[in-house]
Amino acid sequence: MPYFDAASSAPLHPVARQALLAALDEGWADPSRLYREGRRARLLLDAAREAAAEAVGCRPDELVFTPSGTRAVHDGVAGALAGRRRAGRHLIVSAVEHSSVLHAAAAHEADGGTVAEVPVDRTGRIAPGAYAAALREAPGGVALACLQSANHEVGTVQPVAEAAEECAAADVPLLVDAAQSLGWGPVEGNWSLLTASAHKWGGPAGVGLLAVRKGVRFRTVQPADERESGRSPGFENLPAIVAAAASLRAVRAEAAETAAEAERLRGLVERIRTRVPELVPDVEVVGDPERRLPHLVTFSCLYVDGEALLHELDRAEFSVSSGSSCTSSTLTPSHVLRAMGVLSEGNVRVSLPRGTAEADVDRFLEALPGVVAGVRERLGAPKPAEPVEAADPAPEPEPEPELVVDSLGKRCPIPVIELAKVIGEVPVGGVVTVLADDEAARLDIPAWCEMRGQTYEGERPADRGVAYRVRRRA
Amino acid sequence: MPYFDAASSAPLHPVARQALLAALDEGWADPSRLYREGRRARLLLDAAREAAAEAVGCRPDELVFTPSGTRAVHDGVAGALAGRRRAGRHLIVSAVEHSSVLHAAAAHEADGGTVAEVPVDRTGRIAPGAYAAALREAPGGVALACLQSANHEVGTVQPVAEAAEECAAADVPLLVDAAQSLGWGPVEGNWSLLTASAHKWGGPAGVGLLAVRKGVRFRTVQPADERESGRSPGFENLPAIVAAAASLRAVRAEAAETAAEAERLRGLVERIRTRVPELVPDVEVVGDPERRLPHLVTFSCLYVDGEALLHELDRAEFSVSSGSSCTSSTLTPSHVLRAMGVLSEGNVRVSLPRGTAEADVDRFLEALPGVVAGVRERLGAPKPAEPVEAADPAPEPEPEPELVVDSLGKRCPIPVIELAKVIGEVPVGGVVTVLADDEAARLDIPAWCEMRGQTYEGERPADRGVAYRVRRRA
Repeated sequence: MPYFDAASSAPLHPVARQALLAALDEGWADPSRLYREGRRARLLLDAAREAAAEAVGCRPDELVFTPSGTRAVHDGVAGALAGRRRAGRHLIVSAVEHSSVLHAAAAHEADGGTVAEVPVDRTGRIAPGAYAAALREAPGGVALACLQSANHEVGTVQPVAEAAEECAAADVPLLVDAAQSLGWGPVEGNWSLLTASAHKWGGPAGVGLLAVRKGVRFRTVQPADERESGRSPGFENLPAIVAAAASLRAVRAEAAETAAEAERLRGLVERIRTRVPELVPDVEVVGDPERRLPHLVTFSCLYVDGEALLHELDRAEFSVSSGSSCTSSTLTPSHVLRAMGVLSEGNVRVSLPRGTAEADVDRFLEALPGVVAGVRERLGAPKPAEPVEAADPAPEPEPEPELVVDSLGKRCPIPVIELAKVIGEVPVGGVVTVLADDEAARLDIPAWCEMRGQTYEGERPADRGVAYRVRRRA
Repeated sequence: MPYFDAASSAPLHPVARQALLAALDEGWADPSRLYREGRRARLLLDAAREAAAEAVGCRPDELVFTPSGTRAVHDGVAGALAGRRRAGRHLIVSAVEHSSVLHAAAAHEADGGTVAEVPVDRTGRIAPGAYAAALREAPGGVALACLQSANHEVGTVQPVAEAAEECAAADVPLLVDAAQSLGWGPVEGNWSLLTASAHKWGGPAGVGLLAVRKGVRFRTVQPADERESGRSPGFENLPAIVAAAASLRAVRAEAAETAAEAERLRGLVERIRTRVPELVPDVEVVGDPERRLPHLVTFSCLYVDGEALLHELDRAEFSVSSGSSCTSSTLTPSHVLRAMGVLSEGNVRVSLPRGTAEADVDRFLEALPGVVAGVRERLGAPKPAEPVEAADPAPEPEPEPELVVDSLGKRCPIPVIELAKVIGEVPVGGVVTVLADDEAARLDIPAWCEMRGQTYEGERPADRGVAYRVRRRA
């Protein structure tokens, strides 16, 4: 039963399990106590901190353990903003950060601060100089900038070292969310703060990392607590911390081995990137083709309901994730796909755990075409190769032929399917207007136009929902 | 090697260990995912929530899991204060709450709110009607009141049900910190919010509980997060949550068994309470003698340095805790002992884990007198039974005989030892003034007077430190 969602949570690494078991016996006491059980716990905690700091590339006294990657981000962003309050209240983030960063940014805005989002290109990557530009254009003093090391949904690696230089030149600290990449190697460059999450590298749940370089102004916003340098309140989750550090050391210990496994997974991912568009019609593979995480690939399938696709893949025993709106509680497509401007319907993220068998990837590639075709058939999607009906080669110029499709109340991918079905009914040069109130349409109708070579003419408010205009080009 | 510090952290319960191991295999995936590993994790999470809610005595949808008891308190207090901001900004706490509550209160004050501390008597218990009085005397609208179910340092059980009634009559929610008592039984009465910590009942570290009754206004102050009803951000620490719930159910499953073990430990504690003052001279046993936790007893030893005492007990293989100033990083005695007005020097808290062997308690009682005597001897403490030198039965009235002891720069218990040594040098009616700059003297000199039948005449500022005046009465 192949599990292909390592980017959500990786199965526990054997070293983590072993370390956890040992630490349950040796590390349950309060490390601040003077008696032997407490001293033993303290030794374990100190050793874990040293191991984690070495893997991060910082000093042990710069690193604290938090209860999760999310809390590391929340507390790290809030602490850096508070510490630099005199410098200003402006925060710069990329548009494709993890929701924990964007939620921390929203909380900052709600508290009266300002936030700028740095856009990304169609591959999900920020442009060179983008952070320098955002710093120049800041409306006031900049307290902090945040940039992920690599994107969690599409795998695109960000130019963190360059962004860090741009921030350093402006004397602004850069917080790097390294949740997706830390298991594969340290974050390069002159970052100021770094966050990570143990269960992403095969460590246990319940452990995040927050590193704050010496000299970076930081003021904890939590109530006082003497533990973890005052930066992460609460009794230390010691067995899990020990397991997190041990497994981070394990996945990184043999640089050559890690590199070899990364190369192997990169090959499997490349196979998926190449074969999926060959095997499945009307698919868009997204994310930077080169500068990417080794184990993660994402594609979107036209005319496919993401939730139905996930269910069918689950029935076929493949566990994958999706950024489609219909698989989330918010009914909006992934903010990452939106920021990239790529198709969100039928979105599938495949993230391979270490040790993924080649045969499992091949089985996935065998199963996928039938699964997608089945979902499309049930939705009544247009046939893939179905040519648009031969168009009148010389349409009369007036009145402008126009057709309105009412998709109000219908959810992704129905509006796009209905558009595809009628586009052949207007002559070349004619316009189809789709009325839709599903948020995904805003992203998927333009993406469909790009994939189908039609002209997207924009949206305007309608009595109900939004009217999207598409002009037939061929 | 008897471990007598269950109130800090209890060794992992066998059921917790077993559940944790099972959940490491079954519950490492993201419970929000649709595939089978995610659904399995969701089932485990739902079952854990039901079990924990049943033990707490609330509905499952009223309970969320937090990363620690401290975070449960921080987030619970902040959320209740924010939710009731319109009602007012006044917070009522008892003077002997856990530091997590007092630190949350301090953060509220720093944010412009007001806080009132309800005093306790010499046993550490709030007076009947004390919360009603605090509510009446509030300077403005009261947002929240907090009261522990039982004190973590001296074991005194608080009249929570009565305080909850008083709060309900004023339409103010009461948050109960049940960290020390939840393993022994549910909290009685009409509380509004409840917090607890799994590693206190034999569950793993990394799990706290926060229950918020339906109808209680609550607004999360953390950045948004869809997990745990939006009340506790971060990836769920599922294996630990499963272990926490399973062990809570285990320690509470057999009400009769739990009651029998509570009774047995109560007997052992009673033995310590009775025997220690018989075996060790100049000891004050503190805490309510009747209304108390079954497993916890605290006493303070005159003329003893708490840190030295703990070290010697550790050498004798007993792991206990202390609220003495010299064992903390803050150099101030425990705020609990201070609020009670009892002796803090040579303070020892014994908290027995379930299953503690009677023989271990007896060994402790055997070892203690020698250990205390040894510490006292090294400090040059007065002999225990040493009578104060026969006083002049009719001292001449003037000039008032006065003696000044300069203990500046000397740390607890030296100022009290020096006082004890010279009290016999002034005639009955004469005064000894102790100059001291150690915070503990403020608590321990009055406590010594009470124990010794001398008259404490108060303190006044001196050129350096504080001058404490003691009049010889016998």
